[in-house]
Amino acid sequence: MQNTMPLVAPARGFNDEEFQLRTHRAQANMAEQNLAGLLLMTEPEVRYFTGFQTLFWQSPTRPWFVFVPAQGKPVAVIPAIGAQLMSQTWISDVRTWSAPTPSDDGISLLIDLLLPLSTSGARLGILKGHETSLRMPLGDWEKLVASLPGLQITDATRLVHGLRMVKSPAEIEKLSYICRVGSETFAQVPQFIAVGMPLEEVFRKFRCAAISQGADDAPYVVGSADQGGYSDVISPPSRRPLREGDVLMMDTGCTWDGYYCDFDRNWAIQRADDQAKRAYDVLWRATQAGIDAARPGNTSRDLFLAMSSVLSEMNSSGGDIGRLGHGLGMQLTEQPSHAAFDETVLEENMVLTIEPSLSYGDGLMMVHEENIVVGSNKPCLLTARAATELPLIG
Amino acid sequence: MQNTMPLVAPARGFNDEEFQLRTHRAQANMAEQNLAGLLLMTEPEVRYFTGFQTLFWQSPTRPWFVFVPAQGKPVAVIPAIGAQLMSQTWISDVRTWSAPTPSDDGISLLIDLLLPLSTSGARLGILKGHETSLRMPLGDWEKLVASLPGLQITDATRLVHGLRMVKSPAEIEKLSYICRVGSETFAQVPQFIAVGMPLEEVFRKFRCAAISQGADDAPYVVGSADQGGYSDVISPPSRRPLREGDVLMMDTGCTWDGYYCDFDRNWAIQRADDQAKRAYDVLWRATQAGIDAARPGNTSRDLFLAMSSVLSEMNSSGGDIGRLGHGLGMQLTEQPSHAAFDETVLEENMVLTIEPSLSYGDGLMMVHEENIVVGSNKPCLLTARAATELPLIG
Repeated sequence: MQNTMPLVAPARGFNDEEFQLRTHRAQANMAEQNLAGLLLMTEPEVRYFTGFQTLFWQSPTRPWFVFVPAQGKPVAVIPAIGAQLMSQTWISDVRTWSAPTPSDDGISLLIDLLLPLSTSGARLGILKGHETSLRMPLGDWEKLVASLPGLQITDATRLVHGLRMVKSPAEIEKLSYICRVGSETFAQVPQFIAVGMPLEEVFRKFRCAAISQGADDAPYVVGSADQGGYSDVISPPSRRPLREGDVLMMDTGCTWDGYYCDFDRNWAIQRADDQAKRAYDVLWRATQAGIDAARPGNTSRDLFLAMSSVLSEMNSSGGDIGRLGHGLGMQLTEQPSHAAFDETVLEENMVLTIEPSLSYGDGLMMVHEENIVVGSNKPCLLTARAATELPLIG
Repeated sequence: MQNTMPLVAPARGFNDEEFQLRTHRAQANMAEQNLAGLLLMTEPEVRYFTGFQTLFWQSPTRPWFVFVPAQGKPVAVIPAIGAQLMSQTWISDVRTWSAPTPSDDGISLLIDLLLPLSTSGARLGILKGHETSLRMPLGDWEKLVASLPGLQITDATRLVHGLRMVKSPAEIEKLSYICRVGSETFAQVPQFIAVGMPLEEVFRKFRCAAISQGADDAPYVVGSADQGGYSDVISPPSRRPLREGDVLMMDTGCTWDGYYCDFDRNWAIQRADDQAKRAYDVLWRATQAGIDAARPGNTSRDLFLAMSSVLSEMNSSGGDIGRLGHGLGMQLTEQPSHAAFDETVLEENMVLTIEPSLSYGDGLMMVHEENIVVGSNKPCLLTARAATELPLIG
């Protein structure tokens, strides 16, 4: 593997003004919807409003809460193990308990905090809509709600995800950097793969190359390789060795400072059949149609239709993936979805994946993916565009 | 960095008999509790009963469901993107929809499946207790429950986690392997660190070393380094360079075939003060007391008390971590918790972390951690035991 120098990374973290701005924007929208507060408990939302960043979310043991009031700074209600790290953020009201405590994992602290809202019959926003989950025990949630009978629980998914969809310049800088790291890493693949190498080994080398290149981690590396194409895009790698005539696809979510790239590349090992070449060409042009359509005022549905129109040259099903791309940021996949059901209007500084997929032959499929930022005029590609023709390697 | 050969890995996956056994055990316990089924939606639970393994859980977009009936094989209700991979498991009843579909993300499929239970007023177990979360939109859950008014929703956390706590020989083989990979990686640390190296770079080298050594990934790498000790154990690494007199701690969760190791190591850079040496010694002996107490019939609370008794030589607070170790398996942290509140009786083939922590000096703390499997007689160490004295490196 080529020993290239890591790319130069931007500054880590954000300044306090960024968190103030995020909070003020949320509060302006909350005022419109007559919300007295937001209760948030998922990693990207806690990080969005506080800057609290840790891998400790990988442990399912402890819940973490942030309350965004109608005015003023957010309040953190978190396990004591996080107090030191949270004290380094812009948050000043940090309430802790010694977690885990199954009998009361933050619930009485939340009741204290939310009781005034309950007493006044106020509206509390939580995330209970599409693409959300409840990151606390459902039993504890039920206890909390039962203790605060005056509270009007309201879905604030669109409010919060709507804010998160449009990225700040500092967020775009981080996303741009990790996309460049991903592109450099994909560029190295032809140098480290060889016929006979098990796919598992290809993935292992890819991960190390991405980290050496400057990624903090490469948590998402999936893909497939098989004769003339692949039939599944979410499998872990097998020990099957690469063979002449395989189409190899690798899809990666690498991270830097808590932001993801998410794109893939396809290669043919030594030779490609006409069907695979044709699928590749259709997908390349569908991707281009998606990129070209990613302008302010167009919708996610418009992107879907622009890509589908090209895909229909070969197949109208669009595979079983259910959409042709999505938002990108602190999560590998964020809203919106490029799908017929999603009428989200695109805005400048949304970061998106453009991800058409195609079924062909006998149960085969192919996926292309690029990452872009929506500009005021034309979109800006964050990834080094895939080759126009299916590259032969190995 | 030394270019050692990767360790030889065991076979990936499990045979069908293992999934049959898990299902039969669950059904025996369900019969005792008069449960007509279990509805599961979190990654370890879906994998435990089906063998379905993918990194795709990192995308929050799509919910995934498995239903374990009172008799017979589990039923998968999943997005179509997972159909091909699920068809390779022992599961034969796989029901899919084209996800994401915000208006109906699997809900009508679940209603079809569960309607007979609702009609007969049967009891359905779900995970709503300690250390669980609801990995579907709360709004969709509320819709589902409203559509199935006869269903008696029951907490089955203890039933499912109780099964998962006791590992099979094949699971122990995987855990043993990844613990050996972790141990070999920690053994390489003195070879690749140096005074002046930013902590971020130490972590990057550690990740690549672990992957080169045979880990599938090293998703959890946290730690700290500061003069005479550290004050936080969940931070991402900074660019601060290692200095003489630092105590460096690295804590890792590396994975192989979906199973975690979770342990740490401490080193002093070139020199250590007496206070750090003393904390290390107390923690080493507290760890040993925890290991020695890990015998069938003792409880998690007994382990906590055995460790606390040694820790009280120096400090009685035990830090702010809330417990002194936990279960280990498909998750970085699993039940039980070695804490005063947890009376879980230890059984042969439970895999545990032994993780005492100590506060000392001016806001400093230290943590030790080893991984063990409870034996019929004495516990078996899965990790290469930490040095008896704080090692000097760099």
